[in-house]
Amino acid sequence: MKLVKGAQSIAYDRAPYLISSASVVGKKEGAGPIGEMFDLVGESDLFGENTWEEAESTMQREACLLAMGKAHVSQNQVRYLFGGDLLRQGIATSMGVEKLQIPMFGLYGACSTSGEALALASMSVAAGYGEYILAVTSSHFGSAEKEFRFPLSYANQRPLSAHWTVTGSGAFLVGKKESHVRISGLTVGKIVDYGLKDSQNMGACMAPAACNTIWQNLQDFGRSPEDYSRIITGDLGYVGQSILFDLLLEKGYDIRGKHLDCGMTIFDQQTQDTHAGGSGCGCAATVLSAYILPKIERGEWERVLFVPTGALMSTVSYNEGASVPGIAHAIVLEHKA
Amino acid sequence: MKLVKGAQSIAYDRAPYLISSASVVGKKEGAGPIGEMFDLVGESDLFGENTWEEAESTMQREACLLAMGKAHVSQNQVRYLFGGDLLRQGIATSMGVEKLQIPMFGLYGACSTSGEALALASMSVAAGYGEYILAVTSSHFGSAEKEFRFPLSYANQRPLSAHWTVTGSGAFLVGKKESHVRISGLTVGKIVDYGLKDSQNMGACMAPAACNTIWQNLQDFGRSPEDYSRIITGDLGYVGQSILFDLLLEKGYDIRGKHLDCGMTIFDQQTQDTHAGGSGCGCAATVLSAYILPKIERGEWERVLFVPTGALMSTVSYNEGASVPGIAHAIVLEHKA
Repeated sequence: MKLVKGAQSIAYDRAPYLISSASVVGKKEGAGPIGEMFDLVGESDLFGENTWEEAESTMQREACLLAMGKAHVSQNQVRYLFGGDLLRQGIATSMGVEKLQIPMFGLYGACSTSGEALALASMSVAAGYGEYILAVTSSHFGSAEKEFRFPLSYANQRPLSAHWTVTGSGAFLVGKKESHVRISGLTVGKIVDYGLKDSQNMGACMAPAACNTIWQNLQDFGRSPEDYSRIITGDLGYVGQSILFDLLLEKGYDIRGKHLDCGMTIFDQQTQDTHAGGSGCGCAATVLSAYILPKIERGEWERVLFVPTGALMSTVSYNEGASVPGIAHAIVLEHKA
Repeated sequence: MKLVKGAQSIAYDRAPYLISSASVVGKKEGAGPIGEMFDLVGESDLFGENTWEEAESTMQREACLLAMGKAHVSQNQVRYLFGGDLLRQGIATSMGVEKLQIPMFGLYGACSTSGEALALASMSVAAGYGEYILAVTSSHFGSAEKEFRFPLSYANQRPLSAHWTVTGSGAFLVGKKESHVRISGLTVGKIVDYGLKDSQNMGACMAPAACNTIWQNLQDFGRSPEDYSRIITGDLGYVGQSILFDLLLEKGYDIRGKHLDCGMTIFDQQTQDTHAGGSGCGCAATVLSAYILPKIERGEWERVLFVPTGALMSTVSYNEGASVPGIAHAIVLEHKA
């Protein structure tokens, strides 16, 4: 099998399929520009639970159950699960998928985790380690503000460069069974650190990593931006997008005509007061499931480079003066007739 | 290839090799019963840095460099890195491996992370995704007390059931190049929750998961405990060990004659005041590298079941009254003449 490609990429000879997916989001996301496309919009962001953390876990579980349900696959047919979230010690995932009783690998890649999970799920299916494998990620505005900034009741002010964490979870069933979307390859990201230290400007922190991974993907596959219908980053937002354009132009690539950012897609910046855009492990995942995949399934987009981006930091590293490096993983998604 | 086995396991037709490894530990670990066996013992637990977190990152980087150095493999020959630690948002790993510039997957599996990393590294090598792949984990007493309990300067009292987090990092180079240790199979763990809520008694929280994974390994491979030279858990400690024995006896297996626990091996409970035993992502990893692997390399132990165990919790989940479920991953290590 000709699998390993270039410096950081894998190209599948027999590409696994993205069989089904599901998205579960909160009220604000449901009121946004693509609100009608999500599978499930919560009436309350507590999703019937007592805490933001439990609510996030519930979204993950529901997203997994919906994704499996759509494919008529039961949880005991799913061999492994790759999952992650933004919270310390990944408790949204641990508590969320516990009841599914699927052997699991916990991941942490900040907001790039949906890319990491899809990479490992497709690598496992392509290697024959499972017929069906689940990838799931989530984030929640309430739990993330508490984790990274202040409890919501403090009503703190946000700079315009700040993101709004998406309340949502996206789950993906990857396997050998044919569908209209194939995962044909991937590029695993390196940690890229330009020395930025502003955790309220994550777009700027993540843009160099996105540039690095997109550039590497083009080199490894011998492609140009024209070979992709769209190049879609996770949550660079308005600030990060312009930096990404500049960085890639310096390297000779103009992706301005075909770039989308999930964080800019999920909210209406003007009317929803979301500043730089949406963010969180749930942002790229829910937009992929609800907005991107249907277009690939229909053949509207032939080949998409999906590049979730993550800012690697914690309140401890921030308070100790460490910089905020970024990481981005790229997944190549192709329409299959 | 006959790879998938039973309900949760993988058996490799062409087992990858554990080519080299390295262990870096703190002062207390260096003064313990196996202190002489570690590659590097720090003179100060700050390892020349300003914070516990930076110290932990430095241990990870040193462990990776040592493991690669022993095998005469440079970092640009290493295709991917799987790494994790106990800190929120895995910053010890992000900041630790950043300089190596190896495409990386961040993991979180609490103290079971060394098993998770070795599982994914061996799965990737066996599938042909890389010639050399690194697995690394770490923990640090200072950063972990701050993360999960109180800053050290509070000098809080510890119950006898509490663990002592190991200051240490273990790194493992997995690949196709022959060595005297093969990773012949693995069993991926499920989350097991007996409803226990005492984060100061993690041995009891993790023992059911260890039992579940060991039992499943024996079923999937059609083996009995006699087929293993040793069955070695990560950090159940004295309390967890006796629960594991009871739970496995109920299922008809007596492993009392061949069980070891890394947390009980690394410290001398009587003289080092470590209570239930050592714990942390660095515990199982450093004991595997320094103590277990040399015995397998020499053929003293023919086949070992290595089962790092993790307690899934955070200060948030604990304060919100959630239980502490456990997870354990099993790696089958075999001597190769």
